[in-house]
Amino acid sequence: MTKGALALLVHGGTDNWSPQRWKSRFDDVCEGRSVLLLPDASFDPADVHYAAVWKPHPGELAVFPNLRVIFNLGAGVDALMADRSLPDVPLVRVAVGDLTARMTEYVVLHVLMHHRQEPYLRESQREKRWAPKSQWAAGAISVGIMGLGTLGTDAADVLRRLGFRVAGWSRSPRTIDGIECFHGEAQLEAFLRRTDILVCLLPLTPQTRHILDRGLFEKLNRTSPLGAPVVINAGRGGLQNEADILQCLDDGTLGGASLDVYATEPLPADSPFWTHPKVVLTPHNAADTDPDEISKYVAQQIARFEEGGALENVVDRKRGY
Amino acid sequence: MTKGALALLVHGGTDNWSPQRWKSRFDDVCEGRSVLLLPDASFDPADVHYAAVWKPHPGELAVFPNLRVIFNLGAGVDALMADRSLPDVPLVRVAVGDLTARMTEYVVLHVLMHHRQEPYLRESQREKRWAPKSQWAAGAISVGIMGLGTLGTDAADVLRRLGFRVAGWSRSPRTIDGIECFHGEAQLEAFLRRTDILVCLLPLTPQTRHILDRGLFEKLNRTSPLGAPVVINAGRGGLQNEADILQCLDDGTLGGASLDVYATEPLPADSPFWTHPKVVLTPHNAADTDPDEISKYVAQQIARFEEGGALENVVDRKRGY
Repeated sequence: MTKGALALLVHGGTDNWSPQRWKSRFDDVCEGRSVLLLPDASFDPADVHYAAVWKPHPGELAVFPNLRVIFNLGAGVDALMADRSLPDVPLVRVAVGDLTARMTEYVVLHVLMHHRQEPYLRESQREKRWAPKSQWAAGAISVGIMGLGTLGTDAADVLRRLGFRVAGWSRSPRTIDGIECFHGEAQLEAFLRRTDILVCLLPLTPQTRHILDRGLFEKLNRTSPLGAPVVINAGRGGLQNEADILQCLDDGTLGGASLDVYATEPLPADSPFWTHPKVVLTPHNAADTDPDEISKYVAQQIARFEEGGALENVVDRKRGY
Repeated sequence: MTKGALALLVHGGTDNWSPQRWKSRFDDVCEGRSVLLLPDASFDPADVHYAAVWKPHPGELAVFPNLRVIFNLGAGVDALMADRSLPDVPLVRVAVGDLTARMTEYVVLHVLMHHRQEPYLRESQREKRWAPKSQWAAGAISVGIMGLGTLGTDAADVLRRLGFRVAGWSRSPRTIDGIECFHGEAQLEAFLRRTDILVCLLPLTPQTRHILDRGLFEKLNRTSPLGAPVVINAGRGGLQNEADILQCLDDGTLGGASLDVYATEPLPADSPFWTHPKVVLTPHNAADTDPDEISKYVAQQIARFEEGGALENVVDRKRGY
């Protein structure tokens, strides 16, 4: 029996994410199975049983009549969910330890940068000013994490270890050691009121679109030891109202922002974020992932699936993540 | 019986460290004991049993004939040890949890900044370039910590939790879970050879002066995934040969440096460090400490000492720390 083929559709990403690199990694781990790098490969669409995708174009997946599982090569599936022709087969998000560890690095780095006055200290260096300012202990600062899945929980754990007061907010109730957990619409305001540094790791769904807006920023701790509260968004650009962020930075509602994601990516050259002195900008590289680890993860999931086992991290299409 | 007075000599430091703030904190915790803020207070030197000091001038402590204990209000005692007239009484370094936690914040922040290409990303932002580069996982990077006392051990623990390969080097043998421990002159080279990011938290002694020089930098990992190895010094300025650091940054022996301490502080305006693109400079504020916690620590130590108990963290004058 011939194994069903795996179709690989990879659009965009960093140099680390070249389609050829993915093809080579999947070839290594998919013994006896054809790995078709689209759109170049010539093949019979009926042979394709699996698809591993990153930002496929709408309709690209609808051409495979025998598709069994779609694997998304990153954590966010919002782009896929917007494809109305997406085949009704299980959709799996990759959730490998490597991606989690990298997101935790990003979150810890950016929380510490704002906590420890990095924008001020870099400005002082440029101006050759030796001007240390008082520094709060981590225990005086409340970090609030929106989204308590695998990523949020891991970042919360390291921040707690560093001494921060850490709270989290999620759609449904959670209990995590050492973390004050809030959930649902009813507890959102209480969560925000205590938050000095807000970290957003939410999935993008119709319910979360533009959740980071002026109304939310105004509910953050108005008596923050940092002067004004800070927002860090490493989720999706669609979570943020970008005009509100800029206005809130300018009128003092926010004291700073770290942004890894944007409504339009790459960020257009005329975006005010590039030059805003209170914005720490990264080019959607908070949690770049390792093709080695992801290709192995996908191959393991396929092997288990073909032996009748359950797939991990299947997206709930009603929730949207 | 009147309690012996405590003399407070505080020179320099940030706004957080104003002598008046120290006086007020010590007044709060030294019930029934005079707290003399020098040089203004008028008093009989014979009444002084304890001194709490930060950067006292040479000779300032020699005037108290009945001095019993000197408390240094920070971790480093190198300036005190250089005072030939220092009375021969126990010298106590403060080692409070607050200071340790702050140093760990600094170390984790600066390791992550270099690991995650912060200098490159800030330059990209200034130039409005959306240009993500491949990012190594923490597990590919070896961090080497020189100095495995309270500070080094705590920082190592968090770095290990973040996934870095962590090694430490100390004068005498140590065993720490999850940390590869090297010690002594004989093992220094093996420690350096594996190190991509070098963190220096050593005390300054005649043996460690200028230990961070070209000879040492050239032994760091020459095939580092980071391109060239990085040095982070949050110990003392006297540990580093500043001309060597600059030359090694310029000829590629080093890929970057985070410096919190300098041969001369405040750093002179004509120092090339201010404008060097590979230097992340902070004004000796890595581990500013909280007068609240330190004053309580000193008061507890005095109380225990007067009941016949042992003092903690007494400096070994032969070792110099």
